[in-house]
Amino acid sequence: MKASGVVIDGLQYSAWSRTIFEQMHEGGLNAVHVTLAYHENTRETLTRFGEWNNRFEAYPDLIRPVYAPEDIHKAKEEGRVGIIFGAQNCSPIEDEIRLVEVMRRLGLMIMQLTYNNQSLLACGCYEDEDSGLTRFGKQVVREMNRVGMVIDMSHSAERSTLEAIDYSQQSVIISHANPSHFHPALRNKSDKVIDAIAANEGLVGFSLYPFHLKNGPQCTLDDFCDMVVWTGERLGIDRIGLGSDLCQAQPQSVLEWMRTGRWSKVMDYGEGSSSNAGWPDALSWFQDNSDFPTIARALAQRGFSTEELAKIMGGNWLDLLTRVASPQSAAAVDEPVP
Amino acid sequence: MKASGVVIDGLQYSAWSRTIFEQMHEGGLNAVHVTLAYHENTRETLTRFGEWNNRFEAYPDLIRPVYAPEDIHKAKEEGRVGIIFGAQNCSPIEDEIRLVEVMRRLGLMIMQLTYNNQSLLACGCYEDEDSGLTRFGKQVVREMNRVGMVIDMSHSAERSTLEAIDYSQQSVIISHANPSHFHPALRNKSDKVIDAIAANEGLVGFSLYPFHLKNGPQCTLDDFCDMVVWTGERLGIDRIGLGSDLCQAQPQSVLEWMRTGRWSKVMDYGEGSSSNAGWPDALSWFQDNSDFPTIARALAQRGFSTEELAKIMGGNWLDLLTRVASPQSAAAVDEPVP
Repeated sequence: MKASGVVIDGLQYSAWSRTIFEQMHEGGLNAVHVTLAYHENTRETLTRFGEWNNRFEAYPDLIRPVYAPEDIHKAKEEGRVGIIFGAQNCSPIEDEIRLVEVMRRLGLMIMQLTYNNQSLLACGCYEDEDSGLTRFGKQVVREMNRVGMVIDMSHSAERSTLEAIDYSQQSVIISHANPSHFHPALRNKSDKVIDAIAANEGLVGFSLYPFHLKNGPQCTLDDFCDMVVWTGERLGIDRIGLGSDLCQAQPQSVLEWMRTGRWSKVMDYGEGSSSNAGWPDALSWFQDNSDFPTIARALAQRGFSTEELAKIMGGNWLDLLTRVASPQSAAAVDEPVP
Repeated sequence: MKASGVVIDGLQYSAWSRTIFEQMHEGGLNAVHVTLAYHENTRETLTRFGEWNNRFEAYPDLIRPVYAPEDIHKAKEEGRVGIIFGAQNCSPIEDEIRLVEVMRRLGLMIMQLTYNNQSLLACGCYEDEDSGLTRFGKQVVREMNRVGMVIDMSHSAERSTLEAIDYSQQSVIISHANPSHFHPALRNKSDKVIDAIAANEGLVGFSLYPFHLKNGPQCTLDDFCDMVVWTGERLGIDRIGLGSDLCQAQPQSVLEWMRTGRWSKVMDYGEGSSSNAGWPDALSWFQDNSDFPTIARALAQRGFSTEELAKIMGGNWLDLLTRVASPQSAAAVDEPVP
């Protein structure tokens, strides 16, 4: 079944191809938040934008860029999938506060403050300890608010996440992670974080990455729906969406780049281990973008109304982005520095 | 008076000129540790090396590069001042563990893990909280040990400093700071840090930057000598040296670059304040490099023996660098990665 309204997936990083974009169409997607950077610095991020321009030129029938939330409506009208640009790390701004606005102008709509490790802004979820937002981090949070860039704390540690939510004057998201209540992965989020996102009117996108799910690749669609129901009750039906973390057709080398970037001389296995170092097997019921209707159907069978389903499948994402990342919400972009 | 042995100043960042290099000669200096980078990234640090090559070409009668500690002996024999390269931040290696060795090969002999703020490696002394060495930081400490790059914790916060000393397999230095016992600046070091440096057989270089001294620019030479005597007793006569932090002929813009780099939209005043935002006035008894003999004379009058004085004025620096940064101490440089 197709959900009414727009369908948005809140996180993907695949080896992009015509096949994958066609699967997005089969799956009824109107927009996908794609990752430009894990460890890429400023210069390298510009190349990632260039690579997307290559794809927009190669597949004009299938995809279009999303520079502002209203472009998602245009994508739907045009029958194309809107590509929302995001970074999973603050590496694109390096050590420069002014690059937040520059990156936003280029189209970067969403940025994580950390990716697993300590960053210049805050602490990641794999460090032993977390001292919260740094001096630079506090400035970046407010600058992201100012220019309409969405703060994403998916890979951040708990204290940093709570401090970012507290310090931000805009809603904050967890684009792709699940409640620890459901599965206690380091990457998943405690009830405390879930409740803070609720109070902040943010959003949590459910991850379909097997390491974030109960029983890993054996997680059933029923289990997944249990999680959606529980989280919808705790967080509110307006605060949940999808963030599949789909990494289709990527080689092992990409997984290693995500995990260790340039910072380590030894492999770091993330939520995996040396005996389980590769990509996890895919879920039987979610293998690619054409499987989104399966999820919508299962949720409908759980009793979500058409209106609720529309929110979960993309309406909440569109609302969040419209509130936080629209030119009007970031009216101060062109104003002088306070 | 001139001290016997070598005379080494453990930190300077001046607007380099023939006048300043001539003053080094007047002051009897054989080597000076100069700062290449405060916030400079990898690419920018290469330009700083290039700028020094300009100076070596322009003033071959006065200065020479120090790529290995033995070059300090050569400098003395040649009657030139050896320039020891250091970074006050880890920005030259960006996020890349392999750049430690690359920077050492270029000549970077000393590197601070942080400069005031949280870095990717550890925490700086101006952050509210300090969670110690990061995952990347631990790898960098051991890599610096391996390639013979000296770990400097002058601008780091206390916990990070103690953890670096604990984790390092080589002696660690505080190139330029004073005991908090003498003056409680955020940049100065507690008895706990002093004692850890003693146990680690490291080195503390006394700073002559007025913000680090009792009574600021009014600090007397007598007060300074009191501090040297106290610290020598606590830390050991083999563990103290000079790290003047002399920043001669630098404009206000350079002070602002040091303090806020690119990370802040508002001025950060460091140990100064908005009502005291500029460079501090110079000490009456230490205005430039020609004043080092004044210090040596005053210390001799305090009863330090000729041998002790030689250690304080440069012998301890030479010993430390020889132990930590010589090719033989970093014999593993050309060995395969463990």
